[in-house]
Amino acid sequence: MVDVVRTKKPSTHRHTPAGGAPTAPRTVEEARRTDAAEPRIDVAAVTDLLLGTWADARRAAREMIKDEAFWQIPGQPMAEHRARVYGQLRRFVESGASGRAFPKEYGGHNDNGANLASFEELVLADPSMQIKAGVQWGLFGSAIQQLGTKPHHDKWLDAVRTLELPGAFAMTEIGHGSDVAAIGTTATYDPATSEFVIHTPFRAATKEFLGNAALHGRAATVFAQLITGGVTYGVHCFFVPIRDENGRDLPGVTTEDDGVKGGLNGIDNGRIAFANVRIPRENLLNRYGDVAADGTYSSDIPSPGRRFFTMLGALVQGRVSLDGAATTGAALAEYIAVTYANQRRQFDSGTGTDEVVLLDYGKHQRRLLPRLAQTYAQFFSHDQLLRRFDGVFSGAKDTPDEREDLETLAAALKPLATWNALDTIQECREACGGAGFMAENRLVGLHHDLDVYATFEGDNNVLLQLVGKRLLSDFAARFTRKDAAALARYAVGQTAGRIFHGAGLRQLGQAVADFGSTARSVELGLRAEQQHELLAGRVEQMVTDLGIALRPASTLSPAEAAALFNEHQSELIEAARAHGELLQWEAFAEAVAGIEDADTRQVLTWQRDLFGLWLIEKHLAWYLIGGRLSAQRAASVTRYIDRLCARLRPHAQDLVDAFGFAPEHVRAPIASGAEQQRQDEARAHYAALEAAGAAPISEKALRKRQKEPVRDAAPRGRIV
Amino acid sequence: MVDVVRTKKPSTHRHTPAGGAPTAPRTVEEARRTDAAEPRIDVAAVTDLLLGTWADARRAAREMIKDEAFWQIPGQPMAEHRARVYGQLRRFVESGASGRAFPKEYGGHNDNGANLASFEELVLADPSMQIKAGVQWGLFGSAIQQLGTKPHHDKWLDAVRTLELPGAFAMTEIGHGSDVAAIGTTATYDPATSEFVIHTPFRAATKEFLGNAALHGRAATVFAQLITGGVTYGVHCFFVPIRDENGRDLPGVTTEDDGVKGGLNGIDNGRIAFANVRIPRENLLNRYGDVAADGTYSSDIPSPGRRFFTMLGALVQGRVSLDGAATTGAALAEYIAVTYANQRRQFDSGTGTDEVVLLDYGKHQRRLLPRLAQTYAQFFSHDQLLRRFDGVFSGAKDTPDEREDLETLAAALKPLATWNALDTIQECREACGGAGFMAENRLVGLHHDLDVYATFEGDNNVLLQLVGKRLLSDFAARFTRKDAAALARYAVGQTAGRIFHGAGLRQLGQAVADFGSTARSVELGLRAEQQHELLAGRVEQMVTDLGIALRPASTLSPAEAAALFNEHQSELIEAARAHGELLQWEAFAEAVAGIEDADTRQVLTWQRDLFGLWLIEKHLAWYLIGGRLSAQRAASVTRYIDRLCARLRPHAQDLVDAFGFAPEHVRAPIASGAEQQRQDEARAHYAALEAAGAAPISEKALRKRQKEPVRDAAPRGRIV
Repeated sequence: MVDVVRTKKPSTHRHTPAGGAPTAPRTVEEARRTDAAEPRIDVAAVTDLLLGTWADARRAAREMIKDEAFWQIPGQPMAEHRARVYGQLRRFVESGASGRAFPKEYGGHNDNGANLASFEELVLADPSMQIKAGVQWGLFGSAIQQLGTKPHHDKWLDAVRTLELPGAFAMTEIGHGSDVAAIGTTATYDPATSEFVIHTPFRAATKEFLGNAALHGRAATVFAQLITGGVTYGVHCFFVPIRDENGRDLPGVTTEDDGVKGGLNGIDNGRIAFANVRIPRENLLNRYGDVAADGTYSSDIPSPGRRFFTMLGALVQGRVSLDGAATTGAALAEYIAVTYANQRRQFDSGTGTDEVVLLDYGKHQRRLLPRLAQTYAQFFSHDQLLRRFDGVFSGAKDTPDEREDLETLAAALKPLATWNALDTIQECREACGGAGFMAENRLVGLHHDLDVYATFEGDNNVLLQLVGKRLLSDFAARFTRKDAAALARYAVGQTAGRIFHGAGLRQLGQAVADFGSTARSVELGLRAEQQHELLAGRVEQMVTDLGIALRPASTLSPAEAAALFNEHQSELIEAARAHGELLQWEAFAEAVAGIEDADTRQVLTWQRDLFGLWLIEKHLAWYLIGGRLSAQRAASVTRYIDRLCARLRPHAQDLVDAFGFAPEHVRAPIASGAEQQRQDEARAHYAALEAAGAAPISEKALRKRQKEPVRDAAPRGRIV
Repeated sequence: MVDVVRTKKPSTHRHTPAGGAPTAPRTVEEARRTDAAEPRIDVAAVTDLLLGTWADARRAAREMIKDEAFWQIPGQPMAEHRARVYGQLRRFVESGASGRAFPKEYGGHNDNGANLASFEELVLADPSMQIKAGVQWGLFGSAIQQLGTKPHHDKWLDAVRTLELPGAFAMTEIGHGSDVAAIGTTATYDPATSEFVIHTPFRAATKEFLGNAALHGRAATVFAQLITGGVTYGVHCFFVPIRDENGRDLPGVTTEDDGVKGGLNGIDNGRIAFANVRIPRENLLNRYGDVAADGTYSSDIPSPGRRFFTMLGALVQGRVSLDGAATTGAALAEYIAVTYANQRRQFDSGTGTDEVVLLDYGKHQRRLLPRLAQTYAQFFSHDQLLRRFDGVFSGAKDTPDEREDLETLAAALKPLATWNALDTIQECREACGGAGFMAENRLVGLHHDLDVYATFEGDNNVLLQLVGKRLLSDFAARFTRKDAAALARYAVGQTAGRIFHGAGLRQLGQAVADFGSTARSVELGLRAEQQHELLAGRVEQMVTDLGIALRPASTLSPAEAAALFNEHQSELIEAARAHGELLQWEAFAEAVAGIEDADTRQVLTWQRDLFGLWLIEKHLAWYLIGGRLSAQRAASVTRYIDRLCARLRPHAQDLVDAFGFAPEHVRAPIASGAEQQRQDEARAHYAALEAAGAAPISEKALRKRQKEPVRDAAPRGRIV
């Protein structure tokens, strides 16, 4: 045993053991021989695949931001950063890239998918720029476009597109973020003057966290409770000027600066309060509800609830774009960390200066490669989301069902992508050690900026709860109220595996493989079909269990029913997460199926397997408890992941190169080759010393020469 | 089912369901009745317990930093921040708090425990100040104190204490962080002049990431390969002046500024390179190795390896203090998030303005309360670590075994505490939504600053690997090389449960309880004794499995053995993590056992249970695969955690109040009561409207009045 503890690391080689069973470690030479016959991906083809449906728009955006005027300057003081980002938006306008989603008559291209795709790429330049652009065109502009009608478009859209009219999107209040329906701002119609009176009745109703509110906004799309004739018709959106041309608050408007934030400090977030500010009746963005001159309210959507959610749904693009931007941010972090891990060496391999490349360590592979597979999955699921978004907003497939599906899909994917970005960026930062903490290497800045993606445009947990409720109502829709017996039968069928654990095994075909122990049988039993079955079965089961658990609610008092629901809140959110994971996996599988080049398909299949098994490993206890995996098979999941990591390790650089980032997008010195250069220099130094006979000898060598026995160190302290 | 989906949240109440089975939701009134009879903790007594052995030193430090001169200013530009922190260190000296660990003859108190305890508290003021103080006194000063001898102490210690001599700790190089033994800087003895020549032979050997190096340091304790008479004696530490009194680099010394970092920007980190810089022979810090005037090397420790680790071990206090500071940082985040969650309301409960307090949501409890229990555990395990540290460094218990145990304990606890801090702070930040992203609310700043704690003073994964190897060598020590048969028997005994899963159940006493399903039987089977058995059994089993897996290494070539080891690297790190978790749990259990007040003991016992079960839940798949938990019992772990969360929820505020933070330590506006005030104001506004008959009626009410049937919204979009 003691020998093992003292064991040195293997010699360095880019191509580590691939494919072999874990009990048969290979020498470097064996590894090299095998790896020469390995498939390699077609990097350029994978880049095309990752850039997806709107690859051209993405490439154009990436080309534009090669100009260093668009790059974030780490540590730039807030005031200067804000000015810089504002300037970047102007350059963006000059390049003709703004308002791509706007109708052609207002200078746009009516190209919704390309518009979002190109916005998402801005995260590579500076996430502040991405989000500031999102505020101006995606929120403020979209509110006018989506919630307003032709007169509003005629009046403002062109000025919004050109940034002549910068604006804030005033929905969130200090007191209400997730619960938009409960905001306190009022818009009371005064028929005497044909005006709405916009008012902030108490401090908690102050509009809060709004980009463009602290400095640059000249107007705001303000969400307020519409009151006319003593009746409140719920939340509507109003166009309200807030500053004059000199940047001073207009009468009755008070703006405040939010000051320094955890990131995105190139955006001037702030607060707005209104003291009985009067705006013309026509400033109500009246696509879904209107007030006549005499104060009569009208709407094509009679249900107040449906009307509210229709208005909110028209603004789904924020969530869609965060799914994409977070994925690109995670990809950048992976590029930096994998490239560094392929060059950085630490701890010798027993041959002097020949130290081991970080990515050859098993743990390092475990840290980076499953997250890389997750990021790949997200590229594919995002492209599906974006296609659906484009279908709805281009009008090509604009049905209520499509809109509902789009909203649910966005609510499922955005939380997963934004959380994964934070997790991946953090792991990458730590995997780069102290160098990862230096701002110039970008990882810390990415984490700071993307942090808030987890809670804005819908708090991630709230969004997943929304998805969970959709899953529950789909479940409920299968059973009419009268059909309790069918529900009961279904439930028993579903939960049998859980109650009699072990009974569900055969249906997954494990009975055959479970008593073999070779790698092959494991893989046969955990291939695509089984991965899908496990992932999909989990969603189905979780929703069914919830449906049954919540069923007594209908016989309880409202308070008791609410308490029951609250007890299952975590499970509901978990079910929604499982649903999102399934969608990501399915998108990955679909993308892989479409690949023609066999080698590329092989490597990406390994990646998809790694992603699927990583998901299954995360929820392994669930599968075991429910009897969907035997203990033996569950144990093999982890071993299979390790084997896939080793298999994918030689492809890691190709896989991050396939993100297609240019040096101007990466900019991190540690991923620039400087590390490699330093190491080559160090190695040359030691080699020259040796050659000149000038190298000092070691204490051990000295004692050997002196024939003095050496009492060596106990192994306890030796790191590696 | 549809009704459930539409269900509203329960009415708000601070005391949520406690103790009841999950299938029996209670009304608010029932909850109030039960909670009146609940135990309450003695907050002041718990504060004493948490502050631990050196409570007085902690209180004194907290009193000092109530002065706002010590507070971090969010967003302060780097240059000003650095100057401010430097000034804070001077004030720290003026207060007499510096150098408490130094010997009395150099102005210190020779009080090692109190010294670290008070340093740790500085994290509440500004982590930059904590770490800058750590660089000056804990690293630079300690190197002189611990690695030097009386002449060095006489010459420099007092000036170090008073900050007259600011210094850098020059160990890490660009090319070598974790592998200190491989650094490239050389210190070659020149007997002709009785000088050492300090030299940076290539760029990768440049000293890097050093606090005090960019600006303030006048000298550095430089680690270099000691070469004399053509023999290299390994890494030793040298005192090297680097700047003159005007702050200019001395001849041959080149310093560079690291610039902006992800956090800790009040510290002037930088690089130092040496071009044949000559220092007197006497500047070798010669406690563990010396060079005579003629160049003869001597050391009391003949083994080079043991000598190296003895020197490094003398500097363990950095790791010890990070364990404490990270715990205090996590506690501050919990204080802020729990206080806010107890005041912030979102989504109505069906009674107008009466919205639900965040901490009443099941998911919110799940997010905050287990992490709170973890933080409590860390306070207790840290106090044990600090006592051990004090025992060794005070000389009271300074044996090689004690030193070794101290180093292993520090290496096990520091990674867990620092990772938990990041995880907890991030969860707290998200739990506070957009407000959590505002710098003034401190959570983002804490994350930025504490981020690097995970990789400095020993990369967390490398430290855990060190612990894992210690566990392995302890395991190996039980079996001499000859006693393979005993090892085999032991291994079979240990892994029986794994191979024949199910067989190990009875020993945990599950056979009795497994077929009952009441809450009581679950709790009886998952009490302290079982928690300990599960946690301790996991460590034992993992180490045994690893020992067996790595055993063939002795028959393999070095390269093959290394490959085998590498394949098990992740498991080794996991075993070390399990060991650290066990130590934390045991410390918690020990602390609870010493509590005299029955109510306090009850509540903290729930917390310890929550911590223990949370750990078990994290590794649930492992317990299932090994047959240590049946599927049914494993499922009950999660339910039990939910129940403990509900039970602890009424105590959450008491438990964070017990951290004993004053408003000057908290400073976050969202935890100051402003939220409560705003809500009271909003509620008063709506009440006044009602009272005056001036409240608008709803659309629904209008239609009812008009006897028009309402088609309500489908439930799909309703959040909550």
